[in-house]
Amino acid sequence: MESIDAIRILGIDPGLQSTGFGVIDKHGSKLSYVASGCIRTNEREPLPQRLGVVFDSIREVIAKYAPHQAAIEEVFLNKNPWSTLLLGQARGAAIAAMTTAGLPVAEYGTMQIKKAVVGQGRATKDQVSHMVVRLLTLGGVPQSDAADALACAICHAHTGHGFGIATPAGGRRRGGRVLPPGAKPLR
Amino acid sequence: MESIDAIRILGIDPGLQSTGFGVIDKHGSKLSYVASGCIRTNEREPLPQRLGVVFDSIREVIAKYAPHQAAIEEVFLNKNPWSTLLLGQARGAAIAAMTTAGLPVAEYGTMQIKKAVVGQGRATKDQVSHMVVRLLTLGGVPQSDAADALACAICHAHTGHGFGIATPAGGRRRGGRVLPPGAKPLR
Repeated sequence: MESIDAIRILGIDPGLQSTGFGVIDKHGSKLSYVASGCIRTNEREPLPQRLGVVFDSIREVIAKYAPHQAAIEEVFLNKNPWSTLLLGQARGAAIAAMTTAGLPVAEYGTMQIKKAVVGQGRATKDQVSHMVVRLLTLGGVPQSDAADALACAICHAHTGHGFGIATPAGGRRRGGRVLPPGAKPLR
Repeated sequence: MESIDAIRILGIDPGLQSTGFGVIDKHGSKLSYVASGCIRTNEREPLPQRLGVVFDSIREVIAKYAPHQAAIEEVFLNKNPWSTLLLGQARGAAIAAMTTAGLPVAEYGTMQIKKAVVGQGRATKDQVSHMVVRLLTLGGVPQSDAADALACAICHAHTGHGFGIATPAGGRRRGGRVLPPGAKPLR
């Protein structure tokens, strides 16, 4: 399905227990499905190991599907601040996996994604899944987190390339890094 | 300073704006200072780039000083939930950098660290810095975040090797990973 001009987009719906991913190709205004799934971690494992699974699994998805750009859903604040903290850590590991693999990462809010996919920001989860299936002509409904990740990738395909692109390609290493005295960069 | 039996410990005090790091050697009951500093990110850069800087810089510290074990401070819940979310993401990127470099990562609460370094959980920041300088026989007081990271490493040296070790060495890849159907592990 990939043509010379296709832009491949990785969408991520982050979570500590389950991180959804979705990969789509954009050829002009046409979108096509490449892959999707969920990265699950074992809640009986310690947090550092679970964050390692999130990071490594996203890196495997990137190595396998070679996306050009990435988009990640912004997280909402949970009523339980500890849940917010856990979700934040999963999101940090996920973003680090993409950024340090050289991918430009854009961030989109839930309402922005719903508006881009369904046409209105207050759409239900079912409406989002339904439109993801239609827009990508899928044979079945993906798992919830995978559908959300595909929706995020679709949102980026519709609104990206300018607006919403948080990290310009190749810009990761410019500025921002100040190493302490005595700790010289290794290369 | 490094002997055959020395255990080298990397301590991290995570933050999005400034992440402190401290490296110490433990020879039996004797501790010695190796390095410390702060990783700063530019608040005018987008979040994904800043998380990339945290991740890459910790990887550089690991490559340069080759620690055997790592310890990270648990984060407290900020009154501002957005601050909690930002701190969580920085912590997630930091932990992913250590775990995926193969380091076992232990987590310690602020009171636990203060108790291990000063002898009481309600010690002030100045008391902690003072004891870090004394315990490591430093010539001057390190920057605040670097001192906190050294204190975390000292806490691990005193209480680790059993209690508080969240990730056993080499245990990162056991279990926890369930890749979705069709997305086979790449290796």
